[in-house]
Amino acid sequence: MEPLAALEAALPPGTVLTDPDLISSYRQDWARDPDAGTPLAVVRPSTTDEVATTVKWAAAHHVPIVPRGAGSGLSGGATAVDGGIVLSTERMREIRVDPITRTAVVQPGLLNAEVKRAVAEHGLWYPPDPSSFEMCSIGGNAATNAGGLCCVKYGVTSDYVLGMEVVLADGRVVRLGGPRLKDSAGLSLTKLFVGSEGTLGVITELTLRLVPAQLPQATVVASFDSLTAATDAITAISSTMRPAMLEFMDGVAINAVEDEMRMGLDRTAVALLVARSDAPGEFAEREAVLMRELCEKHGATEAFHTADPEDGEAFTAARRFAIPAVERRGSLLLEDVGVPVPKLGELISGIASIGERNGVIVSVIAHAGDGNTHPLIVHDPTDPDNTARAHRAFGEIMDLAIALGGTITGEHGVGRLKKAWLPDQVGDDVIDLTRRIKNALDPDGILNPGAML
Amino acid sequence: MEPLAALEAALPPGTVLTDPDLISSYRQDWARDPDAGTPLAVVRPSTTDEVATTVKWAAAHHVPIVPRGAGSGLSGGATAVDGGIVLSTERMREIRVDPITRTAVVQPGLLNAEVKRAVAEHGLWYPPDPSSFEMCSIGGNAATNAGGLCCVKYGVTSDYVLGMEVVLADGRVVRLGGPRLKDSAGLSLTKLFVGSEGTLGVITELTLRLVPAQLPQATVVASFDSLTAATDAITAISSTMRPAMLEFMDGVAINAVEDEMRMGLDRTAVALLVARSDAPGEFAEREAVLMRELCEKHGATEAFHTADPEDGEAFTAARRFAIPAVERRGSLLLEDVGVPVPKLGELISGIASIGERNGVIVSVIAHAGDGNTHPLIVHDPTDPDNTARAHRAFGEIMDLAIALGGTITGEHGVGRLKKAWLPDQVGDDVIDLTRRIKNALDPDGILNPGAML
Ligand SMILES: Cc1cc2nc3c(=O)[nH]c(=O)nc-3n(C[C@H](O)[C@H](O)[C@H](O)COP(=O)(O)OP(=O)(O)OC[C@H]3O[C@@H](n4cnc5c(N)ncnc54)[C@H](O)[C@@H]3O)c2cc1C
Ligand SMILES: Cc1cc2nc3c(=O)[nH]c(=O)nc-3n(C[C@H](O)[C@H](O)[C@H](O)COP(=O)(O)OP(=O)(O)OC[C@H]3O[C@@H](n4cnc5c(N)ncnc54)[C@H](O)[C@@H]3O)c2cc1C
Repeated sequence: MEPLAALEAALPPGTVLTDPDLISSYRQDWARDPDAGTPLAVVRPSTTDEVATTVKWAAAHHVPIVPRGAGSGLSGGATAVDGGIVLSTERMREIRVDPITRTAVVQPGLLNAEVKRAVAEHGLWYPPDPSSFEMCSIGGNAATNAGGLCCVKYGVTSDYVLGMEVVLADGRVVRLGGPRLKDSAGLSLTKLFVGSEGTLGVITELTLRLVPAQLPQATVVASFDSLTAATDAITAISSTMRPAMLEFMDGVAINAVEDEMRMGLDRTAVALLVARSDAPGEFAEREAVLMRELCEKHGATEAFHTADPEDGEAFTAARRFAIPAVERRGSLLLEDVGVPVPKLGELISGIASIGERNGVIVSVIAHAGDGNTHPLIVHDPTDPDNTARAHRAFGEIMDLAIALGGTITGEHGVGRLKKAWLPDQVGDDVIDLTRRIKNALDPDGILNPGAML
Repeated sequence: MEPLAALEAALPPGTVLTDPDLISSYRQDWARDPDAGTPLAVVRPSTTDEVATTVKWAAAHHVPIVPRGAGSGLSGGATAVDGGIVLSTERMREIRVDPITRTAVVQPGLLNAEVKRAVAEHGLWYPPDPSSFEMCSIGGNAATNAGGLCCVKYGVTSDYVLGMEVVLADGRVVRLGGPRLKDSAGLSLTKLFVGSEGTLGVITELTLRLVPAQLPQATVVASFDSLTAATDAITAISSTMRPAMLEFMDGVAINAVEDEMRMGLDRTAVALLVARSDAPGEFAEREAVLMRELCEKHGATEAFHTADPEDGEAFTAARRFAIPAVERRGSLLLEDVGVPVPKLGELISGIASIGERNGVIVSVIAHAGDGNTHPLIVHDPTDPDNTARAHRAFGEIMDLAIALGGTITGEHGVGRLKKAWLPDQVGDDVIDLTRRIKNALDPDGILNPGAML
């Protein structure tokens, strides 16, 4: 029997896709890597056992496996490799919520938004909120340690993963952690697997920590005609208080969003901040006023606040829509560089110079309160020269972030597109450390080869 | 030259102690393991370089190293091994606070309380607060992933460690993470080293995340004449809200504390809860009232609340004093078992049965909101029969926690005293995974051999 036929026979009918048309939509993630390979097959298991069967088969036949959630990744982490398997978790969609222990046990394929909705029915909240929350899986969130807008106050995915079930490179299934709020038994393996980008194992179940529903939020919106004024306001806010959100958009993004949403954003502004407070009762508005005042003090041309949750949500939605809006201007090379908050100004102005020098448009949006920016490099993939300049800018922006004591990725992960810069950031000894762990856990290198390392 | 003389020559005078009298106080941690070995020497470096020199020397001569912070550990993690080196961080006491990025860079030997005080000068707060905060080092906290009283709302040490510098088993120095609030570049190595109990490397510097100063707290104190009533109240509180503290003491602990502190605790009570809220303004008192009402609803015999921070602090101090107070009744075998919160009642009543069956007094105190209990087994080490029964109870309590889906250690770590139970909790495959990581990072096994594994 052909190797693949053996896998098909071992799994329920319809689990293994080999039709080239069907397969082609699983070759790339949102980063649309033009060098994506063509997989042998796409496997869509529904259960942990089916995942284990697939991984065991792959280990026996030395076939690489690329785990895939919803494919919204921005760093090529789920890019298919030639002759490999794409293991899609899209059919693994169960959830069990326990309101008493405030935990949920979820399969990895459920979307972040679906998790949020399921727990909201119990008056609970799963905070991490990537802008892509309607189209990314909770397993992908765990594999990339996803962030989002509320993370400035509520932390990232890692802070909410209490336990998981993982299929290791040899097909063994292990349980790490569990529904215990504190657990110091043995190495922090759960935390190690969060953010491992599919290189150490396939996550087949997550135990998530939930918190009570978020309180109504008050929102501040402030426009600036100078970048320095905006970043000074950001530093002032984030060193005085803990906003529940503190987001930034530059002029390009403001205009791109305004083109699509027509909500009256100031098209002449150089920067827009959207910040929120979810303090209880009147304290939300009080914090919003404080933030507005700090914006005004640092030179906002216009600033207002609203305690109306719907009004506030409109501005948050505008910020969330920035990536798709800018994407209408051309193909994007998406960055995720981060720096300590006081270095934001230097980073953003340096990015502008890089854009100018290379003759490409770079729009910057940011989870500003975390110092985490998303420079969006607009380019035309049909124009080789323009594309080459965009790629040069892509590298220079990471070099700049590293020079400022920052990171090449705050929340999207290294994937395939940023791995050439990882050694520059962390150093050869840390790469060696990483490789030793990778080799110890996946000696044959079948799990997501080419990602991260 | 003798091997040890070479080390002494390579380090500043006074760094290496060999005097048996001086050394003897470094043989045990707070768990006072009677089987502690006698080290060759105690090395007290002041700098990372000196740590690296020591580890390189140890690697070259195959001498085991036991890293040691302040020796307040409760699981024998810092127990000396015969012929090894105890590497004490007590001289590594520098701290640099950056109020703008709200981070602190600290050497590992500073006490938790000293870190808290240094950052408080800038209006900032480092939340993790083990009861031992006046006598445990921040490096030991990171190595054990220490918890404490406020962790029910604010999380554990791991949640506050953004980066670290570590000396690896071969003496190489690496930097993991850094002063960035979000960083997804590469594997989550910082998180892996937190809680690694000195088995993967020696932590020589930590970058800590800080938050604004805690708001004034309102405190609730409630007495119960039945265990079920108390644990029902705990579940009710922790499934409705997020208290800033939710602590439990049983009758033995209440009486032991009252003997020492004479603060008028109800000596006839079966259980005492101390809970706090730090919500802003009048919301603290509102939450306290809500908690008091939940206690009353579930049968508290007496319950009151106070918005006076000092009154509240007295009850918190009483709870913190419980371990030393109970210790005056005899030597302690200290447990740290945890379960999902709704299983607390079953755990605590099961522990009482275990105590009775084995004829030993077991007092239970708990970080109840986390489901994390500290059964204190009182025994007389000069009485072999009593000691044997105490050790039997020690094992049975861990077996019970595992049977209830819990953990053998919520915050103290596995150390040497609990390692026989680790495989029962996590399973052989997770032990194998752990061992593979340990071997990859410390192939010669010189770092804290005998701890955890
Ligand atoms: C418009 C837009 C906005 C975005 N905004 C944000 C944001 O605010 N914050 C943020 O953090 N991200 C953001 N992202 C990026 C992306 O949504 C996240 O990285 C998300 O976590 C990816 O989830 P996914 O299910 O799509 O994963 P995929 O893209 O399918 O995979 C991502 C990585 O995870 C691995 N993986 C997936 N599932 C598993 C599994 N079960 N086991 C092991 N490995 C697995 C893959 O191999 C790959 O390496 C945005 C993306 C878009 C398109
Ligand atoms: C009365 C009392 C109350 C306590 N209450 C709590 C509590 O509420 N919560 C809690 O979590 N703990 C509590 N503890 C336990 C203890 O204080 C913690 O485990 C603390 O984190 C240990 O710190 P230490 O500096 O004393 O470490 P040590 O006891 O010296 O060492 C502990 C472990 O860490 C390793 N280690 C220490 N420093 C380093 C380093 N720099 N690099 C690598 N490894 C290192 C050691 O090898 C050992 O394995 C309590 C202890 C006592 C005595």
